[in-house]
Amino acid sequence: MDSVFMQKIQRAVDATGSLVCVGLDLDPEKMPERFRSFPDGFADFAKAIIEATVDAAAAYKPNAAFYERYGAEGWRLLERIREWIPDDRVAICDAKRGDIGNTSRMYAQAIFETLGYDAVTLSPYMGRDSLAPFFEFSAHGSFVLCATSNPGADDFQTPRGLHLDVARKCVEWNTKENIGLVVGATRTDCMTEVRKLTPDMPFLVPGIGAQGGDLEAVLKAGLNAGGGGMLINASRSILYASTGDDFAEAAAAETIRMRDMIRAGSRGL
Amino acid sequence: MDSVFMQKIQRAVDATGSLVCVGLDLDPEKMPERFRSFPDGFADFAKAIIEATVDAAAAYKPNAAFYERYGAEGWRLLERIREWIPDDRVAICDAKRGDIGNTSRMYAQAIFETLGYDAVTLSPYMGRDSLAPFFEFSAHGSFVLCATSNPGADDFQTPRGLHLDVARKCVEWNTKENIGLVVGATRTDCMTEVRKLTPDMPFLVPGIGAQGGDLEAVLKAGLNAGGGGMLINASRSILYASTGDDFAEAAAAETIRMRDMIRAGSRGL
Repeated sequence: MDSVFMQKIQRAVDATGSLVCVGLDLDPEKMPERFRSFPDGFADFAKAIIEATVDAAAAYKPNAAFYERYGAEGWRLLERIREWIPDDRVAICDAKRGDIGNTSRMYAQAIFETLGYDAVTLSPYMGRDSLAPFFEFSAHGSFVLCATSNPGADDFQTPRGLHLDVARKCVEWNTKENIGLVVGATRTDCMTEVRKLTPDMPFLVPGIGAQGGDLEAVLKAGLNAGGGGMLINASRSILYASTGDDFAEAAAAETIRMRDMIRAGSRGL
Repeated sequence: MDSVFMQKIQRAVDATGSLVCVGLDLDPEKMPERFRSFPDGFADFAKAIIEATVDAAAAYKPNAAFYERYGAEGWRLLERIREWIPDDRVAICDAKRGDIGNTSRMYAQAIFETLGYDAVTLSPYMGRDSLAPFFEFSAHGSFVLCATSNPGADDFQTPRGLHLDVARKCVEWNTKENIGLVVGATRTDCMTEVRKLTPDMPFLVPGIGAQGGDLEAVLKAGLNAGGGGMLINASRSILYASTGDDFAEAAAAETIRMRDMIRAGSRGL
């Protein structure tokens, strides 16, 4: 019997035939000019993007940094955006949190209860008791940073196999079946290794598009035996597919293009 | 010539003769009953604590989780609290952030510009490009998690010497002299090792008081050659020294007690 969180992912994938996650990283320098006023222009842009892409996207993932930049009003917007993501999609708050136990409980409350997101991203540096308060929310999911897509992954993760230690520990800690891993699209070697350690764990995969990850290689490395087990994120390539009046149509077209490329590479969809 | 950030710490230490940092972790379950209404009661409590302890505290450190728990209004309170911390004290936002480069720049703006804090805590899992955007704020400081005070430090940090890798890299990256390290009071063995690698880097030391760290051992392990180089944090033991009407006096007394114990153990103050 799958957990509530695993069922939630499966329902979103079934509803859309898609593994695409749309990253809602609202950057006024890249948005069409008429949306650049904060917060209302941003809100209108986010709403239009969600509406345009919803048939082909299984998940949405705002990154908290793009909102915190605007302080309290940014947080208000993060709350509003949550409400526009349909219940049968996965709403992920990309926040990369992690702190000592009693403090992580507050973060978990902030993201799962106050903001109401289904899932969060976590940084594992501080170990088990910094993550466990999130895992305890059995209906919610936690994607733990494992092998990240950025160049700095080679500072602490890959040299000593830290990403493999994280994967192994997460398997051990996954008693509620609500843990996933963040594995970057630019790290398909790592992804292959991690998939062997975690045959069934969902991956959240950033790094396609602007960061240069290769979709075919990602599918080869990361799909599980059922042809799923991944949410593949794209932010800039979808949000800013066009900066003209056709931005929403362009975002929809890019989401559909990604969905179809993934379908072509996966037997499971 | 010291950096603006190192000068800021020194000025705060000189003004107070103290290495104490007061952690502003506002927990309604522990606060005196009349302050438990959010946000105004919380604000009054924080203001009273700052006023009562200011003569003996070099730094203040709200942990973002305790505010984010309340969403947008929590962020508003984090802004207000910043304004009550005097300019000649160090205002640290304990947020443990870190993300890919363009995203970390947004977090740095959020904390240093929007909220206006002098310093931040960062999680190093994602490596250099996740931290560098913070380091680029040359007048602001970044305390990078190194050896943390919680039990989970033994999951990924200590088994393979990750904390030492982090310390070494931070020395290499510290071209603007605005990097510090978080080294927990419960990890004095690690602290001794890390101090050898970083003779002059400021440590932010949590884990005294409620978490059980031993102050004498911390001073022995962590003081630099000048008898300083540390900000030693206490949260619960100061904030909730009394839950009666004398909470402010009790907080002041506990801060002074800590300051004096540290003075007794350090030749530099």
